[in-house]
Amino acid sequence: MAYEFSLTRRVEFSETDMAGIVHFSNYLRYMEAAEHAFFRQLGFSVASPDGQEDLGLPRVHVACDYLAPLRFEDEFEVTLLVEKRSTRSISYRFGLRRLQPTPQVEVARGRIVVVCVRRQANGTFQAVALPKPLAAQIQAAPRSRLRQLQAGQSRRR
Amino acid sequence: MAYEFSLTRRVEFSETDMAGIVHFSNYLRYMEAAEHAFFRQLGFSVASPDGQEDLGLPRVHVACDYLAPLRFEDEFEVTLLVEKRSTRSISYRFGLRRLQPTPQVEVARGRIVVVCVRRQANGTFQAVALPKPLAAQIQAAPRSRLRQLQAGQSRRR
Amino acid sequence: MAYEFSLTRRVEFSETDMAGIVHFSNYLRYMEAAEHAFFRQLGFSVASPDGQEDLGLPRVHVACDYLAPLRFEDEFEVTLLVEKRSTRSISYRFGLRRLQPTPQVEVARGRIVVVCVRRQANGTFQAVALPKPLAAQIQAAPRSRLRQLQAGQSRRR
Amino acid sequence: MAYEFSLTRRVEFSETDMAGIVHFSNYLRYMEAAEHAFFRQLGFSVASPDGQEDLGLPRVHVACDYLAPLRFEDEFEVTLLVEKRSTRSISYRFGLRRLQPTPQVEVARGRIVVVCVRRQANGTFQAVALPKPLAAQIQAAPRSRLRQLQAGQSRRR
Repeated sequence: MAYEFSLTRRVEFSETDMAGIVHFSNYLRYMEAAEHAFFRQLGFSVASPDGQEDLGLPRVHVACDYLAPLRFEDEFEVTLLVEKRSTRSISYRFGLRRLQPTPQVEVARGRIVVVCVRRQANGTFQAVALPKPLAAQIQAAPRSRLRQLQAGQSRRR
Repeated sequence: MAYEFSLTRRVEFSETDMAGIVHFSNYLRYMEAAEHAFFRQLGFSVASPDGQEDLGLPRVHVACDYLAPLRFEDEFEVTLLVEKRSTRSISYRFGLRRLQPTPQVEVARGRIVVVCVRRQANGTFQAVALPKPLAAQIQAAPRSRLRQLQAGQSRRR
Repeated sequence: MAYEFSLTRRVEFSETDMAGIVHFSNYLRYMEAAEHAFFRQLGFSVASPDGQEDLGLPRVHVACDYLAPLRFEDEFEVTLLVEKRSTRSISYRFGLRRLQPTPQVEVARGRIVVVCVRRQANGTFQAVALPKPLAAQIQAAPRSRLRQLQAGQSRRR
Repeated sequence: MAYEFSLTRRVEFSETDMAGIVHFSNYLRYMEAAEHAFFRQLGFSVASPDGQEDLGLPRVHVACDYLAPLRFEDEFEVTLLVEKRSTRSISYRFGLRRLQPTPQVEVARGRIVVVCVRRQANGTFQAVALPKPLAAQIQAAPRSRLRQLQAGQSRRR
């Protein structure tokens, strides 16, 4: 059973905009990349969570608070916590922290909610239960850990 | 004084992902594009809101609820409403509605909050008041109009 | 029978990078957008050129020469010319010209070659002939027109 | 003196398109990322190659041949070779090879030419010599090595 995952990245040139900082939409791509790496660590691919290709996990809600800018070549850490795992959906909380150049600083907090869907023959999506082998490995983080993240302590103490 | 703006776009191939639908992060780029076109209509550029280049309007908060997928070549409308205009910041509400292929359907609702900043010599940002000529032209939308958007009626009745 | 198409766009904020200009990779997305609009004008969608979804038109070659930068909110024109249409592939030439702010200036020239493929059951692609209704509507531009584009005269005289 | 660099990446979901493969424009971003990592390894940042911020290295030419598709979560290697280093410009050759899932296969070959420029007060760029400390560390790869890359042997033997 897992509820936490962290990955470290470096800002790429193509992720910046003319303001000299990372374009705000890319923070959400960073969070998504952490979710997918979390799945891989559990032995799953988000692209076929049941081992076939009829299921998907589209986002139904995202949010992000921007606390400080990230710049080209900054190193940063994305921490993912599972906030809630229900039958058909997973809610994540994210914290982004700049590692280099120091001083370390929290740069963003975010939230993503995904729902498991089956693609219908007519192209629409129908909400379905998460595959059992996947659901069995994901649990909500302890409240104390979620409070730490919300307090800007993305790193486990 | 203005509080509302709409633009129509068509989904491009490069905005889709392997799930066959628009990548969720691009909805936020669509909303930003509507904000920038709103500024242009008022005679301002978001890149230099005071006519110089020391000011900027970074995002401090974004959120989006995804209600239905957008696909390649779909035509859709992005409606922007000013939710609040204070001395240093502007809050927007957005509604996205698919126009083609019919039937029309609401595909997303979002929110973006921007803050006016001055770039400091050391590269950091300091929150400052919105330029007066800009602030003088932007006002909050009537509550009744905001309620319409929240009820999925992105089009003015 | 068609061999030329032009579209006008405005540079978006999210297309710029920290150098204050459009990221070079986006020029290729602009060219692709012109190709897809060319298809639409002919009554086809690049996503299902035979009206079904088993065919695709992946790129096998792209090239671009960058002559001048594009900046946020610049208006520019993308001109597409068909250089060659063979049984299984289409070669395009592109010219990008800034329209606003004046003076007008050529900003880039490019080339894209696409091949028609059928997706195999095992996920690989097999080169196949272009659908006849599509092939019947596309022809190579006259050599004189191609020379004009290469001479920086993206506009028809 | 250096002329070669390799990095390994994994395809992210947001880099794919509705054809189920990496969007062709992202191959050029992968190549650019390898160039920037090559600079970092030499102790330079492409964003300020002279330690100040008035210089830049915009692309004046790019080209790419696509040999096989890359898919979500594929691991691949980008190999950069310096083809030519002149006073004001650098030409690179690139080879992209899929590592996982096996069998290994060459997926693309590319070329990028960059020119060193100084940003003028009026916003235009003037071509200038590469900073000497940078130029002193970069040399062209041996012809035999360049031939290997062109023969699809991106890995050093």
